[in-house]
Amino acid sequence: SDGVLAIIITIMVLELKVPHGETLKDLGAVAPAFFAYVQSFWFVGVYWNNHHHLLHTVKKVTGTLMILNLLLLFCLSLVPFATGWVGETSFAPMPVAVYAIVLAVCGLAWTFLQNTIKSCNNWSDGITKVMNRQNKKGLVSTLMYLAGIPIAFINPFISEALFVSVTVMWLWP
Amino acid sequence: SDGVLAIIITIMVLELKVPHGETLKDLGAVAPAFFAYVQSFWFVGVYWNNHHHLLHTVKKVTGTLMILNLLLLFCLSLVPFATGWVGETSFAPMPVAVYAIVLAVCGLAWTFLQNTIKSCNNWSDGITKVMNRQNKKGLVSTLMYLAGIPIAFINPFISEALFVSVTVMWLWP
Amino acid sequence: SDGVLAIIITIMVLELKVPHGETLKDLGAVAPAFFAYVQSFWFVGVYWNNHHHLLHTVKKVTGTLMILNLLLLFCLSLVPFATGWVGETSFAPMPVAVYAIVLAVCGLAWTFLQNTIKSCNNWSDGITKVMNRQNKKGLVSTLMYLAGIPIAFINPFISEALFVSVTVMWLWP
Amino acid sequence: SDGVLAIIITIMVLELKVPHGETLKDLGAVAPAFFAYVQSFWFVGVYWNNHHHLLHTVKKVTGTLMILNLLLLFCLSLVPFATGWVGETSFAPMPVAVYAIVLAVCGLAWTFLQNTIKSCNNWSDGITKVMNRQNKKGLVSTLMYLAGIPIAFINPFISEALFVSVTVMWLWP
Repeated sequence: SDGVLAIIITIMVLELKVPHGETLKDLGAVAPAFFAYVQSFWFVGVYWNNHHHLLHTVKKVTGTLMILNLLLLFCLSLVPFATGWVGETSFAPMPVAVYAIVLAVCGLAWTFLQNTIKSCNNWSDGITKVMNRQNKKGLVSTLMYLAGIPIAFINPFISEALFVSVTVMWLWP
Repeated sequence: SDGVLAIIITIMVLELKVPHGETLKDLGAVAPAFFAYVQSFWFVGVYWNNHHHLLHTVKKVTGTLMILNLLLLFCLSLVPFATGWVGETSFAPMPVAVYAIVLAVCGLAWTFLQNTIKSCNNWSDGITKVMNRQNKKGLVSTLMYLAGIPIAFINPFISEALFVSVTVMWLWP
Repeated sequence: SDGVLAIIITIMVLELKVPHGETLKDLGAVAPAFFAYVQSFWFVGVYWNNHHHLLHTVKKVTGTLMILNLLLLFCLSLVPFATGWVGETSFAPMPVAVYAIVLAVCGLAWTFLQNTIKSCNNWSDGITKVMNRQNKKGLVSTLMYLAGIPIAFINPFISEALFVSVTVMWLWP
Repeated sequence: SDGVLAIIITIMVLELKVPHGETLKDLGAVAPAFFAYVQSFWFVGVYWNNHHHLLHTVKKVTGTLMILNLLLLFCLSLVPFATGWVGETSFAPMPVAVYAIVLAVCGLAWTFLQNTIKSCNNWSDGITKVMNRQNKKGLVSTLMYLAGIPIAFINPFISEALFVSVTVMWLWP
């Protein structure tokens, strides 16, 4: 699964289409796509990191776990598509709302996966503590992504600012 | 080989072309491609899972095994192409029939690989039992894929429903 | 490096562009690209297999080795490009000649790598025997690829038949 | 992270668009893109090699380390985009300057990562010596990339020659 996340993170850069002209202005036309890429790179990067740690706490692999893990990878695999649409339309309301939905669905899939792993494995107190904190962070993130859906129709840039602040919250050491 | 499956599963999302407009209607135009992607993601996901378990039962790697494994990867590598065609033509009869052929050929390649591994390795009773059940499931799946070929020319959506039900059968815990 | 080979083998299928129409005739238009893909898939597949075995015989990694390994990966990374050109032009003479050059250069890079590994590592008699046989096979292959260059301008299909027979020779158990 | 570098190195070849015609002249039109690819392949290849060795010296993975590592991967993920632009515009001044900026930023991200790892881990004298030499090489490289930015507006080919010489310096055993 680490492989899938590595591929998703790199495939997104393929949505950054090479500018046709050779001036700074031509490069500027790619700016929205670039900012959409930056936000999504770090979004998936945080998942990559957390997912790696979470799977290390698993001792017994069950069928349900495999399916929930595939479900998370499926949701994350939609991020490049949503990112591409946001970038191509320069942060139009509908694409940003769809992007918010994708992020929220990833958050839900993550919560399902984490809770299933929790119920199947005897975590040490140290891991339980870390995971509980992550769980709270995850809940706040999903709520902010959900808030980003209606806000996109008022001002998509406020939604985008919400998403960026969630990512910064996760990257904060 | 795990790597190849991870790449195939992720490459398929590249066939989901970003919509040109920014409305919900533009997104709707991608719906057939999206449903084709969903079905193929889980199809390959099931193979990924089963393939991973199957290769863990191998003790001695022979030349024939390498070739049959490459053959399976080759067949699976055609899934993104067939998926893209089904999506682009919104489930037209011929593309769905070709998609069914690709799925059936993957099933045959899997059966060859599994039987070769069985004849070269002394499986424990537990593994033999699991593999025999998988073998039966595999046979049913291949028959349903084959049935999907002529049915596609009557109604491609019935074929698609067959493929989805096979995938659900495999995902059922 | 295994990862790079897995990616090269899968990226090639991206050159198989989805047909625009929905009939069998539209699919037929992809046939040359498909045959070019089949030949290249197995070409890279054989390298993947041999490369995996060769690197397992390495005990000491030197700087020269790293560079020669990167050189081989570089040459192999050109295969998807050459394959795409052959497919798009339906086996025109010049593309087939360029394809033959790429295959020959891969063969040379392989021979360099193998000989460098041989001179740095004390292989057991068993491995030396296998590698010597592979070396002979490799020499024959490279000569056949080189022969394919001029022959492409007489009849590109004879060149292609040469390449296919080399691949079959390697796959023969 | 090894996976991401493997994907970046291979994705770049996707920017080498298959020529539309079938003559040598059509192939010649791809020559600038090809040379841009060659330079970038070896640039990322050197990072792949050094990154692999650097991460092997890490004993304790911290949050800061993860972020700096992601930062380096992010910078390197922009190389295919910049390479594609340089190739498509046949080494126009602005694209080459942007390419130089990307290379310089990769160099800075590498230096940050290396210094953070140094301060968290007790390296043996042998590793410290190698890393100090690499650090000096890295400083020289970054300065040459920075010099390549203004020089691109005088003559982009001089900049390109600078980049190539840096890569050769790293590949020199």
